[in-house]
Amino acid sequence: MIGLTKIIVAGFKGRMGATAVDMVLNHDGFELVGVYDPVATEKNLNEVAGYADQNVPVLTLEQVPDVTPDVWIDFTIPKAAVANTKFALEHHISPVIGTTGFKAEEVAALKQLSKEQGVGGLIAPNFGLTAVLMMQFAKQAAKYFPDVEIIEMHHDNKLDAPSGTAIKTAEMMAEVRAQKEQGNPNEKETLKGARGANYDGMHIHSVRLPGLIAHQQVQFGGVGEGLTIRQDTYDRVSFMTGVALACEKVTAAHELFEGLENFL
Amino acid sequence: MIGLTKIIVAGFKGRMGATAVDMVLNHDGFELVGVYDPVATEKNLNEVAGYADQNVPVLTLEQVPDVTPDVWIDFTIPKAAVANTKFALEHHISPVIGTTGFKAEEVAALKQLSKEQGVGGLIAPNFGLTAVLMMQFAKQAAKYFPDVEIIEMHHDNKLDAPSGTAIKTAEMMAEVRAQKEQGNPNEKETLKGARGANYDGMHIHSVRLPGLIAHQQVQFGGVGEGLTIRQDTYDRVSFMTGVALACEKVTAAHELFEGLENFL
Amino acid sequence: MIGLTKIIVAGFKGRMGATAVDMVLNHDGFELVGVYDPVATEKNLNEVAGYADQNVPVLTLEQVPDVTPDVWIDFTIPKAAVANTKFALEHHISPVIGTTGFKAEEVAALKQLSKEQGVGGLIAPNFGLTAVLMMQFAKQAAKYFPDVEIIEMHHDNKLDAPSGTAIKTAEMMAEVRAQKEQGNPNEKETLKGARGANYDGMHIHSVRLPGLIAHQQVQFGGVGEGLTIRQDTYDRVSFMTGVALACEKVTAAHELFEGLENFL
Amino acid sequence: MIGLTKIIVAGFKGRMGATAVDMVLNHDGFELVGVYDPVATEKNLNEVAGYADQNVPVLTLEQVPDVTPDVWIDFTIPKAAVANTKFALEHHISPVIGTTGFKAEEVAALKQLSKEQGVGGLIAPNFGLTAVLMMQFAKQAAKYFPDVEIIEMHHDNKLDAPSGTAIKTAEMMAEVRAQKEQGNPNEKETLKGARGANYDGMHIHSVRLPGLIAHQQVQFGGVGEGLTIRQDTYDRVSFMTGVALACEKVTAAHELFEGLENFL
Repeated sequence: MIGLTKIIVAGFKGRMGATAVDMVLNHDGFELVGVYDPVATEKNLNEVAGYADQNVPVLTLEQVPDVTPDVWIDFTIPKAAVANTKFALEHHISPVIGTTGFKAEEVAALKQLSKEQGVGGLIAPNFGLTAVLMMQFAKQAAKYFPDVEIIEMHHDNKLDAPSGTAIKTAEMMAEVRAQKEQGNPNEKETLKGARGANYDGMHIHSVRLPGLIAHQQVQFGGVGEGLTIRQDTYDRVSFMTGVALACEKVTAAHELFEGLENFL
Repeated sequence: MIGLTKIIVAGFKGRMGATAVDMVLNHDGFELVGVYDPVATEKNLNEVAGYADQNVPVLTLEQVPDVTPDVWIDFTIPKAAVANTKFALEHHISPVIGTTGFKAEEVAALKQLSKEQGVGGLIAPNFGLTAVLMMQFAKQAAKYFPDVEIIEMHHDNKLDAPSGTAIKTAEMMAEVRAQKEQGNPNEKETLKGARGANYDGMHIHSVRLPGLIAHQQVQFGGVGEGLTIRQDTYDRVSFMTGVALACEKVTAAHELFEGLENFL
Repeated sequence: MIGLTKIIVAGFKGRMGATAVDMVLNHDGFELVGVYDPVATEKNLNEVAGYADQNVPVLTLEQVPDVTPDVWIDFTIPKAAVANTKFALEHHISPVIGTTGFKAEEVAALKQLSKEQGVGGLIAPNFGLTAVLMMQFAKQAAKYFPDVEIIEMHHDNKLDAPSGTAIKTAEMMAEVRAQKEQGNPNEKETLKGARGANYDGMHIHSVRLPGLIAHQQVQFGGVGEGLTIRQDTYDRVSFMTGVALACEKVTAAHELFEGLENFL
Repeated sequence: MIGLTKIIVAGFKGRMGATAVDMVLNHDGFELVGVYDPVATEKNLNEVAGYADQNVPVLTLEQVPDVTPDVWIDFTIPKAAVANTKFALEHHISPVIGTTGFKAEEVAALKQLSKEQGVGGLIAPNFGLTAVLMMQFAKQAAKYFPDVEIIEMHHDNKLDAPSGTAIKTAEMMAEVRAQKEQGNPNEKETLKGARGANYDGMHIHSVRLPGLIAHQQVQFGGVGEGLTIRQDTYDRVSFMTGVALACEKVTAAHELFEGLENFL
């Protein structure tokens, strides 16, 4: 018999943590055995509006091992999350960390610890599963089609262009793509910037419009044919499909990974 | 009884002229009463490969009035086309001119002549009907949604960016759009060119990939909604839908117009 | 000097009414002179969470004329809205009605009353401005391109297919489109339903996927070219662009109209 | 030193064969050592219009081994192609077969022969590389997102719906997808066919419009996110990217494969 995966959510008073609580409560095969948040004043989740019919203890760190969790979901702040990950690994709980801002040396130390303990875990800057798949597919296609442009589209409050996802996609494609300066060698911009940003010979275009949320299109061209991979994020709740996938896979791992793509 | 529209095609030995011949032969309500081309050596269209079962005279200029055409379709060269248009107007034949490169003063003189003669005509730089509709719709939407970006996509042999159609679309929108610098006022390009070209506060992006032909997308954004108008040209034969429309409308006009939009 | 447009919001305790309140408070040229809702217990909007710094009276029907409003925005229930519209017209307040479910005879009577009073007004089932523009553009293009298919895409909770907007779009195109059974006359479905629904010879396809909100694409084809008009609704707050437009235009009208397209 | 890959093209008088000749002549690393076609009357390719400056012998079957080819490209007819593939394998030439219509037992026998000879080869019904990648990516994504719809779009001369590619894509996804009847369990078609064809719980929509060539979009939905993979064929010449890839890979193989995906 396969038992339920027992899960703790750290940071359950924040927006992402609360969304994680909902996901665990509604996901077949998962059991929410406790929630944790230093700022919580409740003793049980049923004291929180909307959760009256639940019975899940709000735990202190010391109480966590008593409920023997398999997985520790973390949406807190960087400082807390590093300590939490260490705590989880030491107690043979698999961490699934959505908190961002870890330093490289912190990740290295945690990876080392995970190997010593033989405990699987995941730190992921982006749990958007469609975004991760888009990047994987783009990398696969770039082997065969060096002509590629990225069009990323975001709401018009966004400050930076191109988006982090666009840059990361270009980096991943550059690893496998035959080097090429795309477009006509003699092409000429009659209006500056028309051909977009140039990353290693690939062009990136950033669209900013009200109404949009977060979208990206990776467009490949070959003789007489084209291939387009498009990803749309409509709501940050989308991250939970990736968190759930990580919770399912992490307990079979024996070390700490960085990036959801490791569990695909 | 409504008779057939009798049509002459000038420049029938060229690629566009030949396509016009095919259109007229296959269009209900049209009759090809003659073809003309200074470089032709044939006496009848049936001497041309693929037209053996037709019987259409190859005419000299002097012979044209004998077949009493209603419409003169012209895909020749600028020098010839100006004289041809004058000849057509003087003989009460409505010119439909796809030849490009007329000078402003030439067009002005021909317009004057058309009014004197009371003969309708059309000079159009672009007979692509979907392109003309796209520009019309973009102009209408720009009244309500000042946030708009243009993404134009062409094959990678194209030299200039942005395309002429993109510039013309932006010009037309600028006539009615509330002036606005689009995007976050503090936005920052971490890779130069990411936000594209800036035309009067609207951003234009030029994508160049093998496989593509000629495509343009005008994308509007508002609070919680978006509107996109996209035009695709797969083949230059597409121009003939617009030429046919012009032939249908031109005989009811009483002066020479510039731009297919005048007949919508 | 042009004064502010003085506006009342009826139904301000509901979700759409509350959104309308926010729109009026944040829109240049608009002044919120009162709010109304039979279920309200507050005396002033500043008693409602989030509006502490406002000073807008909650009015009874009798008090409404005292604040001399120009426009009455209504997001209530059909029964109340009919009476409200009558009340507004009688007091020379221009109604802008987003409440749906009016009977044809009710609309007819209200139109009659509006003419007698010489007061402008608008009843609109859909204030989504991009949706209204999409339908207008589709109708214009259908004159020239009888080959057209509609692809509408909604979240997978939606019960009915095709959507009301898709049907209305097809109806509008049918008014001007040359009748045609689209596709190959001998086409054959090897899997039943592949070619979608058939409305007067045009095909309609309904896509249902989690993540989607409400989207529609009207796709035209001609020889060698294509034209696509796409509309995306990401959030119902989008309706407020259309409500604001109506408030700006309605006071210059002298009768009651049905459909936002009348104010474009 | 790595030598050139020596290639023969069989069926060079046909449209696809002629395109293959052009590809081989223009591809770095390939050498066209001969062409073959039972209907050819020329002795050398330079007798064919447009190839005056080439020097490539037109071979009889008996002469083929003399030029020691590495690869045999075949765009002929089924009857000839089976014999040709056998001939190639027996002479240690790697067949790359674009001719369609092989029977299952013929393929089985050829596979057996290839293993005995230790010679690599490829029979592919579709050399469209973007189409093959689209299907691969769709299969990968279907593991994580069971909610998926296919929209395939073709010119309106096409007789059958859905397309063979759409069916094959659905089959490949069905192998890995968690079984699910997509959409609202209580959904209702108010116009029959709106929800498209149903293949194992996935919906397929077939759009037919003039102007289109061959396009397919596989659209996945998850909570708050979406992923779309789109493939466009603008010209059948696109197949040559896949043929070239096969020629590069086939000589390192030691048996006959079916489907270009085996060489990705």
